[in-house]
Amino acid sequence: MGVPIPIRGPLAVPFRIFGVTQSKMNPNICTICERAFRRVQKHQHVTAIVTILFADIRGYTRLSERMDPVELSEIVSVFQGQCAQAIWAHNGIVNKQMGDGLMAIFNFPIKIEQHAEMAMTAALDIQRRCKAALAALAARFSATPDKLGIGVGIHSGQVEIGEFSTVRSDFTAIGGTVNMAARLESQAAAGEILVSSESAALAPGLVTKSTRSLALKGIEHPVLAHVLIAGG
Amino acid sequence: MGVPIPIRGPLAVPFRIFGVTQSKMNPNICTICERAFRRVQKHQHVTAIVTILFADIRGYTRLSERMDPVELSEIVSVFQGQCAQAIWAHNGIVNKQMGDGLMAIFNFPIKIEQHAEMAMTAALDIQRRCKAALAALAARFSATPDKLGIGVGIHSGQVEIGEFSTVRSDFTAIGGTVNMAARLESQAAAGEILVSSESAALAPGLVTKSTRSLALKGIEHPVLAHVLIAGG
Repeated sequence: MGVPIPIRGPLAVPFRIFGVTQSKMNPNICTICERAFRRVQKHQHVTAIVTILFADIRGYTRLSERMDPVELSEIVSVFQGQCAQAIWAHNGIVNKQMGDGLMAIFNFPIKIEQHAEMAMTAALDIQRRCKAALAALAARFSATPDKLGIGVGIHSGQVEIGEFSTVRSDFTAIGGTVNMAARLESQAAAGEILVSSESAALAPGLVTKSTRSLALKGIEHPVLAHVLIAGG
Repeated sequence: MGVPIPIRGPLAVPFRIFGVTQSKMNPNICTICERAFRRVQKHQHVTAIVTILFADIRGYTRLSERMDPVELSEIVSVFQGQCAQAIWAHNGIVNKQMGDGLMAIFNFPIKIEQHAEMAMTAALDIQRRCKAALAALAARFSATPDKLGIGVGIHSGQVEIGEFSTVRSDFTAIGGTVNMAARLESQAAAGEILVSSESAALAPGLVTKSTRSLALKGIEHPVLAHVLIAGG
């Protein structure tokens, strides 16, 4: 919006009465960013070109079967916390958190010209942060969290952004672009970042590793993924 | 909590100043239910026995590749709306919505003695409502939404409930029980409800159809699933 709204401290109180507060998706923006378009467009949606990032903990289901639930929740907290920091540092928003997974959007509502590059840099940051943080947990835990690793998938393209429920507000992005990013992430090994050709073309400087042809569930043709490896 | 809080109408205004409003997860409860335990327990979590329900639109990725994004968003809206109505009617909460999927919790924060039975009845209601609503959309659309169907997975057991992020509030349930429900849902065909033996044992009256042995990703042993079929 570009309008300065106090979202912290005493000046923020009157705004809170009207429901204007820090966005949960990025603490540097307020909820007006999330709501403005909703009021104007009512039940319509916004079409936007964005980069979508999915990340999750590889082998989490196996881990959830074996591990002490309190230790498991510590791993999830550390993962979600480190990912959010990395995404916010690159102007993305954390749109969805689902247990051991999350979805982030780059280029909406915060406009970023280099949104694909920002998402990839955030992904490298996620890998770096999680590696360090999860290694710090490993020493204390009964199971085998040293095998823990994060998989990331990134794809850029057009999405529909809005609230896709007739009864419950739920701001999100949907469309083929979102699903492609999710499918790429599902194929990423621990420590890997799989980037679609579309995202790679938007950020030629960053992609330096191998490519891989993938058959993805629900997607007709094989997909060429560029592999970014943390620390590479 | 059992304390009556006005969550609608003019009496609700003073409560809104303090952030107390209708819960997005179930309009019949207020956000105090979501927050109370957080304040008391700070960074600890609550352990609860619950029933978890996952539902999604089968073949959604394929559809998202082919379909007009605005029509796709209509399908998602109808699906999310109908599911939420069915879940709320049976005292569950809609905890997560992720594009074409959702996760519901029965027995927290609203206590329900027959939580597995309620989840199964809600699932049958979801199938019935979505079948009618999606058929109504089918006539208008360019793609093949007549092949649309919903898959549901249900499992009961212990979960950790809390906020699993050091930087962002995100109330949810985690643990092996949640993942098992998600894995069951991923194996459900259109129109099917796959129920774990644990849930079935809690609601013997409802399960009358076949059983199926499933190999689920990340879960060591084959899992026996009870198949509930809509209209059955």
